[in-house]
Amino acid sequence: MKRIDGRQPDQLRPVHITPSYLRHAEGSALIVAGDTSVLCAVTVEDRVPPFLRGTGKGWVTAEYGMLPRATPSRTPREGRDSHTQGRSLEIQRLVGRSLRSVVDLASLGARTFIVDCDVIQADGGTRTLAVTGAYVALTHAVAGLFHRKLLRENPFRGAVAAVSCGIVDGVAMLDMCYEEDSRADVDFNIVMTDGGELVEVQGSAEGSPFSRGQMDELLDLAQGGIQSLLALQRGAVEAWTQTGAG
Amino acid sequence: MKRIDGRQPDQLRPVHITPSYLRHAEGSALIVAGDTSVLCAVTVEDRVPPFLRGTGKGWVTAEYGMLPRATPSRTPREGRDSHTQGRSLEIQRLVGRSLRSVVDLASLGARTFIVDCDVIQADGGTRTLAVTGAYVALTHAVAGLFHRKLLRENPFRGAVAAVSCGIVDGVAMLDMCYEEDSRADVDFNIVMTDGGELVEVQGSAEGSPFSRGQMDELLDLAQGGIQSLLALQRGAVEAWTQTGAG
Amino acid sequence: MKRIDGRQPDQLRPVHITPSYLRHAEGSALIVAGDTSVLCAVTVEDRVPPFLRGTGKGWVTAEYGMLPRATPSRTPREGRDSHTQGRSLEIQRLVGRSLRSVVDLASLGARTFIVDCDVIQADGGTRTLAVTGAYVALTHAVAGLFHRKLLRENPFRGAVAAVSCGIVDGVAMLDMCYEEDSRADVDFNIVMTDGGELVEVQGSAEGSPFSRGQMDELLDLAQGGIQSLLALQRGAVEAWTQTGAG
Amino acid sequence: MKRIDGRQPDQLRPVHITPSYLRHAEGSALIVAGDTSVLCAVTVEDRVPPFLRGTGKGWVTAEYGMLPRATPSRTPREGRDSHTQGRSLEIQRLVGRSLRSVVDLASLGARTFIVDCDVIQADGGTRTLAVTGAYVALTHAVAGLFHRKLLRENPFRGAVAAVSCGIVDGVAMLDMCYEEDSRADVDFNIVMTDGGELVEVQGSAEGSPFSRGQMDELLDLAQGGIQSLLALQRGAVEAWTQTGAG
Amino acid sequence: MKRIDGRQPDQLRPVHITPSYLRHAEGSALIVAGDTSVLCAVTVEDRVPPFLRGTGKGWVTAEYGMLPRATPSRTPREGRDSHTQGRSLEIQRLVGRSLRSVVDLASLGARTFIVDCDVIQADGGTRTLAVTGAYVALTHAVAGLFHRKLLRENPFRGAVAAVSCGIVDGVAMLDMCYEEDSRADVDFNIVMTDGGELVEVQGSAEGSPFSRGQMDELLDLAQGGIQSLLALQRGAVEAWTQTGAG
Amino acid sequence: MKRIDGRQPDQLRPVHITPSYLRHAEGSALIVAGDTSVLCAVTVEDRVPPFLRGTGKGWVTAEYGMLPRATPSRTPREGRDSHTQGRSLEIQRLVGRSLRSVVDLASLGARTFIVDCDVIQADGGTRTLAVTGAYVALTHAVAGLFHRKLLRENPFRGAVAAVSCGIVDGVAMLDMCYEEDSRADVDFNIVMTDGGELVEVQGSAEGSPFSRGQMDELLDLAQGGIQSLLALQRGAVEAWTQTGAG
Repeated sequence: MKRIDGRQPDQLRPVHITPSYLRHAEGSALIVAGDTSVLCAVTVEDRVPPFLRGTGKGWVTAEYGMLPRATPSRTPREGRDSHTQGRSLEIQRLVGRSLRSVVDLASLGARTFIVDCDVIQADGGTRTLAVTGAYVALTHAVAGLFHRKLLRENPFRGAVAAVSCGIVDGVAMLDMCYEEDSRADVDFNIVMTDGGELVEVQGSAEGSPFSRGQMDELLDLAQGGIQSLLALQRGAVEAWTQTGAG
Repeated sequence: MKRIDGRQPDQLRPVHITPSYLRHAEGSALIVAGDTSVLCAVTVEDRVPPFLRGTGKGWVTAEYGMLPRATPSRTPREGRDSHTQGRSLEIQRLVGRSLRSVVDLASLGARTFIVDCDVIQADGGTRTLAVTGAYVALTHAVAGLFHRKLLRENPFRGAVAAVSCGIVDGVAMLDMCYEEDSRADVDFNIVMTDGGELVEVQGSAEGSPFSRGQMDELLDLAQGGIQSLLALQRGAVEAWTQTGAG
Repeated sequence: MKRIDGRQPDQLRPVHITPSYLRHAEGSALIVAGDTSVLCAVTVEDRVPPFLRGTGKGWVTAEYGMLPRATPSRTPREGRDSHTQGRSLEIQRLVGRSLRSVVDLASLGARTFIVDCDVIQADGGTRTLAVTGAYVALTHAVAGLFHRKLLRENPFRGAVAAVSCGIVDGVAMLDMCYEEDSRADVDFNIVMTDGGELVEVQGSAEGSPFSRGQMDELLDLAQGGIQSLLALQRGAVEAWTQTGAG
Repeated sequence: MKRIDGRQPDQLRPVHITPSYLRHAEGSALIVAGDTSVLCAVTVEDRVPPFLRGTGKGWVTAEYGMLPRATPSRTPREGRDSHTQGRSLEIQRLVGRSLRSVVDLASLGARTFIVDCDVIQADGGTRTLAVTGAYVALTHAVAGLFHRKLLRENPFRGAVAAVSCGIVDGVAMLDMCYEEDSRADVDFNIVMTDGGELVEVQGSAEGSPFSRGQMDELLDLAQGGIQSLLALQRGAVEAWTQTGAG
Repeated sequence: MKRIDGRQPDQLRPVHITPSYLRHAEGSALIVAGDTSVLCAVTVEDRVPPFLRGTGKGWVTAEYGMLPRATPSRTPREGRDSHTQGRSLEIQRLVGRSLRSVVDLASLGARTFIVDCDVIQADGGTRTLAVTGAYVALTHAVAGLFHRKLLRENPFRGAVAAVSCGIVDGVAMLDMCYEEDSRADVDFNIVMTDGGELVEVQGSAEGSPFSRGQMDELLDLAQGGIQSLLALQRGAVEAWTQTGAG
Repeated sequence: MKRIDGRQPDQLRPVHITPSYLRHAEGSALIVAGDTSVLCAVTVEDRVPPFLRGTGKGWVTAEYGMLPRATPSRTPREGRDSHTQGRSLEIQRLVGRSLRSVVDLASLGARTFIVDCDVIQADGGTRTLAVTGAYVALTHAVAGLFHRKLLRENPFRGAVAAVSCGIVDGVAMLDMCYEEDSRADVDFNIVMTDGGELVEVQGSAEGSPFSRGQMDELLDLAQGGIQSLLALQRGAVEAWTQTGAG
């Protein structure tokens, strides 16, 4: 069975990562998967949230936004409704938790790393692409601090990447584009580490409920896709990790 | 091994459901589990969201809030920060999707059912308790429409309930109270139907990532707890289902 | 002449006070009068507003809210219009002033007592019931500070309670329910101390103006009702006042 | 005993009313009492609020604001706190109710009269001066509609004016300036018609509670002051009432 | 050719300046040109914006607002749309820059001068009249600080005034009223110092583009008008400048 | 004299225009000048603002935003202060007016063209680059309507482009980068048509005022730069204008 863009059910869209895309940000990456593209930019600030003050630990957080015309119809800039706003907040919390799952906060020093993930164009899978790109941007920022001798030990305990999958017309599919996503009966977003462990599992029945067997099939699909994404990340960050950040 | 409140790992807190708690709402229920209590109130409006206009279908949506002093420290009423606001939006979307998964929207007629879930007191598990209580309140509202001959067929395709579970100090536990939740390494919220199928699976590693084996263990725990909750729901709604709504 | 619920013109609705209703709040009370119920919760914070800093005095303030479905038709949670918002602000200022009229702020120490009054169900008289219940919740919080030896002298100079009254179809009536209130020509809210003195008098002609003779008749009615409410408060707080707060 | 500005306890400040102060508004008046001045401007719109649609009745409403530097210290324009906002909403509802108490809404036709009351300078008594000035501005707007033959019968059932009074250092005083007001133990705002009847009575104990005897003394003081204000209003509106509006 | 109000193309409307119009403000002026009037009020605060902290320099800023009924149709107080809001912000930034261009910030000490410009009535030219009046109010505030020996040297390097001009029906005109402005093809606002130099030039083609020759003609017109306004300002501030501020 | 990036005073930065950059938008262009890049996206909606209803005319408007990390330090996404907001509103009004100056609104039909200009990276000159890029995106959208036979006549009366210039260290310079802009004494933004006429002239003295001679020198510089930009635009839109839009 062929998908609407000719892919196999277990095939990712072509993914390209451009690290260090921006001039001002401490770390950045543009990540593109098919017609979805997300710009990730890291800001490092010498302060931590109130609950970490005095602990010596740092923090990693994320923000998520969409340009008004990233989508087929325009999303108004002001007066964004609570649906749009709630979706953004939900996504940025997911990105933040995913990054923190592979970072040793104590090694960051009393700093906050804010990762802005802005969707330039959307065709499904923006939240998982944001996780995958944000990890690259964060390694970029960390490498910069190493280079300037502001960090002494590698704060990363591993790498993290994410992918969506779902059941469309009864078939389990990896990395759905928007058209597939809108017809899906079940929709999963999976975040995994390079150690093969799970960080986030978010599955929803959009139409009818699903069985544990179907869930297992989707987790297998996701695991394969995430391994490919982790390899792409490694390629993108190689330059830095060789020069001292790793 | 005993838990801080003396329960077994697979034991729910005592749960009480008071259906028809409010006078003005078309349907309502107060649901209490240990020290967590949520008031669910259904409003039926003769209008549908724009994307359903002209289809003859109805809609079910939810809103979630907390009284300022439901929590150990007070949450300011105004100036709620984006964390609080994002959490509420995330939860109310979960409750809405869960209810819609067991309702045939075409049978509702061109009506919107808004289920307000307001937390009177919080001690962990508010979002899953809101799902479980909201289902009872919704059956109450539906029974009222039947009684007034405004609905002709039963819109429910099944019942739905939810529970939290997680891994605390290496032990998988059902229905965590706040103290357990705050120490948990992994935190799951599971929504299931009385047909034994999954509606939502939301799992997060708060500390370190988790394996698929751990995830399976948590899903087994949740399934047992949800069966108990579904039985409690049946007891609470029996009066209505016997008099014509079922 | 009988009223719509069978009461005499000078008769209160049945009133029940459940002190210490909440687990987390420093003081609390649920107060119910007929179909109106208000949950009052006190939070004690170790800070004072800017204008009291350095004086050693404390502060008592209140906030007022309504659950969306406390009312016959639902009040939207977001986008509350300025009418709703103005009404809430007006009421919470009334509750705060009423409590402060019987408290010696210097005896409180540099603390702020915030009394959240949230209406669970509304059938007229919510603002006066909030005053009456807030006083009970505040004594609860004060008794707790005594018990923990954080206060040394009784800050209360007296007790305070409130009631509504009005002229409906030409008859002066005490403690109007919503249906009576909406038909009233004149509407008064009266706050008095147990010393028989006035704290607040708020009277409005909804339809046609009123004479000073009519006003005197309403004040007499209110005085009788408030004496009954003060007795109920004394019953509710007896346990605390005997154990050291009084 | 002399007051800080040399007045007798029962003496108003010098009051000047400039009717028709603005060029664009349908009706307007600048009213000045001592160092307090309020600009009242009426807008007539050919629409009514939802609850009056189809009834043929009109509506009168008010809005109240302060220029940032009307007060001794500057009130920020944006980020006005809830205290400032609540005070404004409370006052504009008072002005609206006061005007409606002397207007037959059915005679207005399906029109809304919005009376903007903006405080140019504040030295106590702004809300009562707003009521007194708003009545003059409203008669101006009504006279204009008469002149253009858009109204056929006089909608006024009477005139309305307002004044503050209070107890300062144990002495009952009429029309308090800001310095007196801030030292007052009891603070009343009274609205009366030219028929000698009461429209609003709002009395608060700022310091200690007050007796009914003290309240009666204040009502007597207010009645005298309001009679003087009603005479000044008559002088200001004479031109219009002679040419057909009365 | 005569203009709609009988003026010559190069003629200003009659301008009146009332300095020291308000009692509470540290400096103030009411400025009236034809049917446009703007009230300017200066507040002096002992703080500076973050970017000036520790420099010893002061700051001058402005805010701009309109009373709801300054305009032919009413502008709602709340819910002001982004057009209204953007216009206000644009104008207040212009006023602030204009004032700062003639002030030596180092001579002000670590103080912020906020100049509130509120339009009482609008008939074209509000932004330029605000600049002209704000300069007078600011000299008033500065004279007050001199008088109280809080300033030691004159912070003014010159005077500043502003005027609008434009091309209406092919004719270049000075100081357009609203009706002329709304028909203008080209609209300029010019700010100049008493040294004959330019501070701001803002020219827009409302209809069709304009040539550099037309622009030169408009600058000549503006220069003449501004010289007259500077003379009026000198008359208004004479009292202060003689007593020590100059 | 050489500039900090080696350019001559009258030399533009390298400019690249990528038309049709986005997939969903009806028209789009990415425009880059040195380290400044702006993404312009056109949305066509079948509605017009209230003041154009029933006239058959269309409308062109713009919105302007910046990604949080377009700038050297991060601009918070929420809680943007009034300075940031005012700047955005000022710029988007400039872009809208500039586009409308070369469009015959009657030829557009009853449609609104919204041009979103989002700054991906900022290094001075974002507002003028937005004008120049927005014109290209708009021609793209118009060409699309032509192609679909929804427009019958060319709505463009000409082309429009913009550039900044200023006086830095006494030297007049074209197209300032951020570092030059922040040191400039005088700052101009100029918008011109391909007919050589002016649409907008916005000049501000940041430090000390400027003479008319200096202004003339800056206008000459700008005119040269805009001619180069107009040529680049012609290259970018050639494909469309040959296929029917021109």
